[in-house]
Amino acid sequence: MIRVTVWNEYEHERRIPKIAKVYPEGIHGTLKKAFSAEEDLNVRCATLDDPEQGLPEDILADTDVLVWWSHVRQDDITEETVRRVVRHVHAGMGFIALHSAHFSPVFRRLMGTPCTLNWKEGDREKLFCVNPSHPIAAGVPECIELPHEELYGEPFFIPDPDDIVFMGWFEGGAVFRSGCTFTRGYGKIFYFQPGHEEYPIYDDPDIRRILVNSIRWAAPLRRLPGPPDNIAL
Amino acid sequence: MIRVTVWNEYEHERRIPKIAKVYPEGIHGTLKKAFSAEEDLNVRCATLDDPEQGLPEDILADTDVLVWWSHVRQDDITEETVRRVVRHVHAGMGFIALHSAHFSPVFRRLMGTPCTLNWKEGDREKLFCVNPSHPIAAGVPECIELPHEELYGEPFFIPDPDDIVFMGWFEGGAVFRSGCTFTRGYGKIFYFQPGHEEYPIYDDPDIRRILVNSIRWAAPLRRLPGPPDNIAL
Amino acid sequence: MIRVTVWNEYEHERRIPKIAKVYPEGIHGTLKKAFSAEEDLNVRCATLDDPEQGLPEDILADTDVLVWWSHVRQDDITEETVRRVVRHVHAGMGFIALHSAHFSPVFRRLMGTPCTLNWKEGDREKLFCVNPSHPIAAGVPECIELPHEELYGEPFFIPDPDDIVFMGWFEGGAVFRSGCTFTRGYGKIFYFQPGHEEYPIYDDPDIRRILVNSIRWAAPLRRLPGPPDNIAL
Amino acid sequence: MIRVTVWNEYEHERRIPKIAKVYPEGIHGTLKKAFSAEEDLNVRCATLDDPEQGLPEDILADTDVLVWWSHVRQDDITEETVRRVVRHVHAGMGFIALHSAHFSPVFRRLMGTPCTLNWKEGDREKLFCVNPSHPIAAGVPECIELPHEELYGEPFFIPDPDDIVFMGWFEGGAVFRSGCTFTRGYGKIFYFQPGHEEYPIYDDPDIRRILVNSIRWAAPLRRLPGPPDNIAL
Repeated sequence: MIRVTVWNEYEHERRIPKIAKVYPEGIHGTLKKAFSAEEDLNVRCATLDDPEQGLPEDILADTDVLVWWSHVRQDDITEETVRRVVRHVHAGMGFIALHSAHFSPVFRRLMGTPCTLNWKEGDREKLFCVNPSHPIAAGVPECIELPHEELYGEPFFIPDPDDIVFMGWFEGGAVFRSGCTFTRGYGKIFYFQPGHEEYPIYDDPDIRRILVNSIRWAAPLRRLPGPPDNIAL
Repeated sequence: MIRVTVWNEYEHERRIPKIAKVYPEGIHGTLKKAFSAEEDLNVRCATLDDPEQGLPEDILADTDVLVWWSHVRQDDITEETVRRVVRHVHAGMGFIALHSAHFSPVFRRLMGTPCTLNWKEGDREKLFCVNPSHPIAAGVPECIELPHEELYGEPFFIPDPDDIVFMGWFEGGAVFRSGCTFTRGYGKIFYFQPGHEEYPIYDDPDIRRILVNSIRWAAPLRRLPGPPDNIAL
Repeated sequence: MIRVTVWNEYEHERRIPKIAKVYPEGIHGTLKKAFSAEEDLNVRCATLDDPEQGLPEDILADTDVLVWWSHVRQDDITEETVRRVVRHVHAGMGFIALHSAHFSPVFRRLMGTPCTLNWKEGDREKLFCVNPSHPIAAGVPECIELPHEELYGEPFFIPDPDDIVFMGWFEGGAVFRSGCTFTRGYGKIFYFQPGHEEYPIYDDPDIRRILVNSIRWAAPLRRLPGPPDNIAL
Repeated sequence: MIRVTVWNEYEHERRIPKIAKVYPEGIHGTLKKAFSAEEDLNVRCATLDDPEQGLPEDILADTDVLVWWSHVRQDDITEETVRRVVRHVHAGMGFIALHSAHFSPVFRRLMGTPCTLNWKEGDREKLFCVNPSHPIAAGVPECIELPHEELYGEPFFIPDPDDIVFMGWFEGGAVFRSGCTFTRGYGKIFYFQPGHEEYPIYDDPDIRRILVNSIRWAAPLRRLPGPPDNIAL
């Protein structure tokens, strides 16, 4: 069993009726339901207002893959939380950063770059698979149409990814490296752009398949007790 | 001085009046004029119907960077020509593959992949610079608008490039890795998608700047007499 | 079940008593025995002197992963065989190139580079895992000692690999990118340096584990009837 | 002119006579002399005990490429210094991290990984050029012998580099990715392993050539006033 923790800042869904309608149990609730349908995934949720921001040491130690959604409250994430999560990624925990989590302090710390991009509300996206033999693309069509999605555009200031699996096209005139993998220490990372809170993106079966694939791909082959350290031979 | 040879199959411009109007001296003629304006470039042309397909041993040995355009006559390029050019790339000669040259036997031999793509006539392109600190992007704006260009779309079956410098957005609904670098032996390679024969793409000053940058980038730092061979120590 | 074909030129083992002693049933025989112990692998062998060089169309179409060993008879491999194998790799067949197969016409065609290196007989190797979270490294120690192996040294003229999983250290004073992955079309490729015919490298349980891991990693997620072609939208 | 700042923690050379003899004017003094011989480099020095740790805002704003050596006092580098330097790298400043600077908080912040390695005192190194057409390798021999150097060994927990230019072989039985490039925002980064304080590595003319090449390579093509930020279109 892969132990999955879905973490969500859980803000819009509680405050904005229009968004609450799209995700009545929160984005984490929708994702949990989707992932729990898979026999090899054991899923729990955590949110920003939980004790220790939902990610105390014991939960992280019990997590194989952390799925992360954040947006308007990225500034509330403490330096302690960032360090705890990054430590566990370096020790082998998988990390899936969704949509606006590109700008979360955790993802930026793992990338070492500004992770900035161009954006615009309300657009239509076509998501192209550019690496069809990658495990994250298993069973995924060559192109997924998302009738409503926020526009994210290049230049996207990330390090050169290990693999680019998906690229996004936006009707409004933008392209984006929408699905990218990275390795940091022993941990595998997948950044995936679709998932704006106003649209039911995470109800799309192809999007769900990509996320489930990415969880299986990011599950650690080895998990250290802590990050590696310099070793005197 | 960098010794540049611009090679063109030179077919459409001789046969189709509409294209002859766009490139009255051939695509090679237009490119030669553009490159000759640069003080450090020494430019000559060659075409498919020249002796030895325009690329005999002595011309290749006297070329630092070969700029290549081909399309409808790719099947006429002989295995001997392919091997001669590839040998010189491996020994250090730079190679700039333009537009439909993605499907030339030389480029495919250097890539080791099918180099296939999706395409459609007549579209509008926006070319985004996704690697603004790359030498090929020096002085190039973040986005170049090409009002008329052929649509090239992913999946594009190339090996993972060393660097992706440009990505193309097409109004008709496609994205493309439009400017990519590769290293093969001692030779540096740049593939650049814009340049359909029906539109005066190579008159665009930003496109010219990219090509001139790419020639300087691809000029060999070392040039061997032939490709490297296994060495018994 | 993953359908594995182990292909061997099968020359030294028939002609040189010292090598016949190391691999009495041929390198392919030893590998077949090793792979057949795995429940998910269905293994057959083929050799250069078989009809159609052991790799007719129907065998390739029935192969998920082709494991390849060749050395002194690389020049006997026909252009037809090269094209048939490359076609199937582009369509999704996995390809594991062992040791001196770096210089086989199949591997070179897939790489697009000279694939040359420095070499010397008879040395001691330490094989380091530099990418411990890669699937090919699952369960493999940080360092494998090979008391006798042929020295292979940089510069190794391959394209920049997708991933470098192993690096070799040779007592005689050389380093080598010993385990590298590539993608070509739909096919996944692993090059693995250990395996000189004079030493029982393929009896080593860690080496076997790496090879089994690589077969599972290279097994196609999708298999096309043929390589992809340009598609007019 | 490229404006170079050589920064050194400057500790061993003041405290340990044996090291003071190797670098009587400090490592920074030796590097400054080497770089000042180049007509296109304008060189200044800064050290950890200078005001604002030698790197106040105005010096960084006046620096094209920052060359950095640190070792035993990495823990004294403040979070403010780390953020100032990283900001300028993201905005385009080049950064050359020397030897034990792999473990400096600046380099680790830029990498997003632990940057740990295996090490042992006192060994012999052979430094191999594995990317001979890279600008940093211009005029550099295929192998540089360093009779005395500290052993650094894999696994080295860095992200997959943009390019690996050099690999190190150590007599004691280790291999290392000794010369690696990265891009972070607009800034180019080169990590270079040789340079242990007890040996006169920076007097070696080939090592100097590599460093001068790397400074030219890392000099910004564009320099922003600050790092890029998200842009609403």
